[in-house]
Order: sequence, then structure tokens, then C-alpha cells
Amino acid sequence: MRTHFQQSLTEVSALLVEMSHLVAQAVAEASEALRTADGHRAEQVISGDSRIDAFQAEVEERAIELLARESPVARDLRMVVSALQLAASLERAGDLARHVAELARRRYPELAVPAPARATVTEMGQLAHTLVSQAGQALADQDIEAAARLAVLDDSLDALHVKVFTIAREELTDPGQAVDLTLLSRYFERIGDHAVSIGRRVEYLVSGTLHKQGAVEESHEVTVGGGQP
Amino acid sequence: MRTHFQQSLTEVSALLVEMSHLVAQAVAEASEALRTADGHRAEQVISGDSRIDAFQAEVEERAIELLARESPVARDLRMVVSALQLAASLERAGDLARHVAELARRRYPELAVPAPARATVTEMGQLAHTLVSQAGQALADQDIEAAARLAVLDDSLDALHVKVFTIAREELTDPGQAVDLTLLSRYFERIGDHAVSIGRRVEYLVSGTLHKQGAVEESHEVTVGGGQP
Repeated sequence: MRTHFQQSLTEVSALLVEMSHLVAQAVAEASEALRTADGHRAEQVISGDSRIDAFQAEVEERAIELLARESPVARDLRMVVSALQLAASLERAGDLARHVAELARRRYPELAVPAPARATVTEMGQLAHTLVSQAGQALADQDIEAAARLAVLDDSLDALHVKVFTIAREELTDPGQAVDLTLLSRYFERIGDHAVSIGRRVEYLVSGTLHKQGAVEESHEVTVGGGQP
Repeated sequence: MRTHFQQSLTEVSALLVEMSHLVAQAVAEASEALRTADGHRAEQVISGDSRIDAFQAEVEERAIELLARESPVARDLRMVVSALQLAASLERAGDLARHVAELARRRYPELAVPAPARATVTEMGQLAHTLVSQAGQALADQDIEAAARLAVLDDSLDALHVKVFTIAREELTDPGQAVDLTLLSRYFERIGDHAVSIGRRVEYLVSGTLHKQGAVEESHEVTVGGGQP
């Protein structure tokens, strides 16, 4: 027989998985709005972000209720705390998708991404979407191998991020375009980091071992704008 | 007589305040390394970040211990959960200070910030430092008015962030410089957001009322690169 605790935790997990679908969709839609200069689509991503925020609030509320009512300890306790952290990562990834959409809307009806960088930024959007989708799937399936593969996928996203900086340096002439492009590339790169961070938590929930969180973040974040040292 | 719970919570708060001092110092040192192209100082900020990460790990461990041992409910429970979130905000602000230092080191012995933006970026560094310091002080004093003032201070930082974009558009000729400048400005702007988020939690801990977190973040984050809509 399942305990009441397990049942509540399953409900919280289901909320997180549903939240991951919303975030993945927001990333896909924001990328598409950016690629096609679609103001209406951008608008929908922006207004839809409050739904993602509401999911975070609900996960937080349920997790706190669970802590208060069941007083879990050991692994159960760490699972509830992890749920809070997963919701925070997803919420933040949703914000970043919204930022992409805001930039697309701001430049509408122009394309926000300058021509030399379009293919690369489109690829970044696709990879960021894949990362969030697969993080959500790893969470749903409690699949530790799928979770571990996210870091490899994120390396490809980081490589594109660095490539965008090279394009900005070598192929753009307008510093204003470089500003937009840098922001967009950074947003996608950070979405990937959050997916990796979700993957690490899934690995932890399944295996009971967590890589040091700071180290996780650091090893996956690209922080300098490339070019000569 | 103080309960064991209260004493443990006071210890966790003291860790958070000490952590806020480390982060404020990292922000100040990273800004100074950037202003003076001081590679050695940048190096120290970068290597010092692991100490900030260790504080986060310790707060997390202590908070989880506290939850397991004392099974707090209601306001006590929310205070422990808030401690986890405060530590996460501080750790992230520390990462951002490290990113500033990494960019300063990357451009060493050159100055990373192009001449037209130097005064503004220096001012951003000072404001970001003030924000983190005052957030730490508000936390130490449980000062709800000081916490509320952070949002006003952050508005000034956001205004400088927008000004940097205008400088990039109007006064730079090299898109590569615009890339670096955009990243740096974004790092400082995000440090300010984390300070505001800490202030909101302090307000909550003192008053028991929390602004919706998503709304808090959103209203303080500048996400588009300015210019014509």
C-alpha cells in the first residue's frame, strides 16, 4: 500500500512534469517567434509565463504543506526540498523564454537576429527546447541515463553560444545588433544550464548522490564573450 | 528561554549574513578588478567563489537537518524554506561577481570596458555592491524598511543598464566590445535583482507576507536591449 506521503509526492512530481511541458513549449514558441518575427506568437509566450509562475507557486505550497503535515526525514525530506529547487529552475527557464519573446516583440516587425547569426540562433533555440523537453522526460521517467545525457547536449549549446560571439565580432558591423544577439544567446545558454541542473536533481533523486551544486552550475555556464584572451 | 529551534535558526541566519558579506566583497573586488584591469584581483574573486558555494552547501545542510530534527510548521517552517532560497540567491549573486572577474581576466592586461562606458559600468559596480551590502544588512537587522528600499536602488541600477545599451548603440564602433559590455551590464543588473529578491524574503520573514515571487523577479528584470521598438 502506498503511503499518503508517497501519493502527495507523486502529485507534486506530476505538477513538475506538467510545468516542464509548459516551459518546453514556451521555449519552442519563443524561438519560433524570434525566427519568424511573429509578434502575436511572442505576445502569447509573454502572457503565458504567469501560468508557469502559478505552477511554481503551487509546487511550493504543496511541498510546504507536505513538510508540515508529514514531517518527512532522510531521503523523503530531500525529495521534497528537491521539488522546490526543480520548480525554481523551471520557473527561471520560463522567464528566459519570455525574455526571448520580449526581444522578438521589441524588434517586431523586423527580425531581431541579424542575418549572419540566424541559422546559429535557430539551432540554439532548437537545442534549448530539446534540453528542457528531455529534462522533463527524465524527470517523468526518473531516468538517470537520460538525465546524464543532458550535460553532453548542453555542451553543444555552449559551443553555439561561443560561435555567436565569433559571428558578432567578425561579421557584424552594428554594435546595436551585437547587444541584442548577446542577450538572446545568453538567454538560450542559461535555459540549457537550468535543464542540466534539473537533470542533476533527477540523478540525485534516483541515485541519492548529488554533484556539488555550485560545481554543476559553473562547469556548464559560459561567462566570457570569447575572442582573444 | 529560547528553544533549540530558535537557536539553530539564529545560527543559520548568521551563516547567511556572513555569506552576504563575502558576496558583497566579491562584487566590490570584481568591479575594482574590472575598473583597473587587475588580473591578480580578478583571480582572487574567481578562486574565492568556492567559499561562497561552501556557505550555500552548509546553509542547505543545516536547514535540512533542522527540518528533519524539529519538524517545524507554519511560520517556522517557512523561515527554514526561506533560508534555502536566500542561500540560493546569494550563491547566484556570487557566481555573477565571478563572471565579471572572469571577463576582466580574459581581457587582461587590456581594460575590458570600452572608454565611453567606463564611468557608467563603474557606477553599476558600486550600486550592485551597495545593493548586496544593504540586502545583507537588512537580513542581519530584520529591517523591513531597509529591505523595501532595495527595489528603489535597483531601479537606478536598471536605468544604468539601459544607459549602457544606448552607449553601445551610439558610441561604440566595434561589435566585439558591445558583446563584452552587454554581458558585464547584464551580470551587474542580475546581481541587483538577487539583492531585491533577498529584500523581499526579509520583508516576508518579518511581516509574514510575500509578494508573488514570479512577479517580484519580473518587475525588476530588464530584458531587452533598448533602442527603437
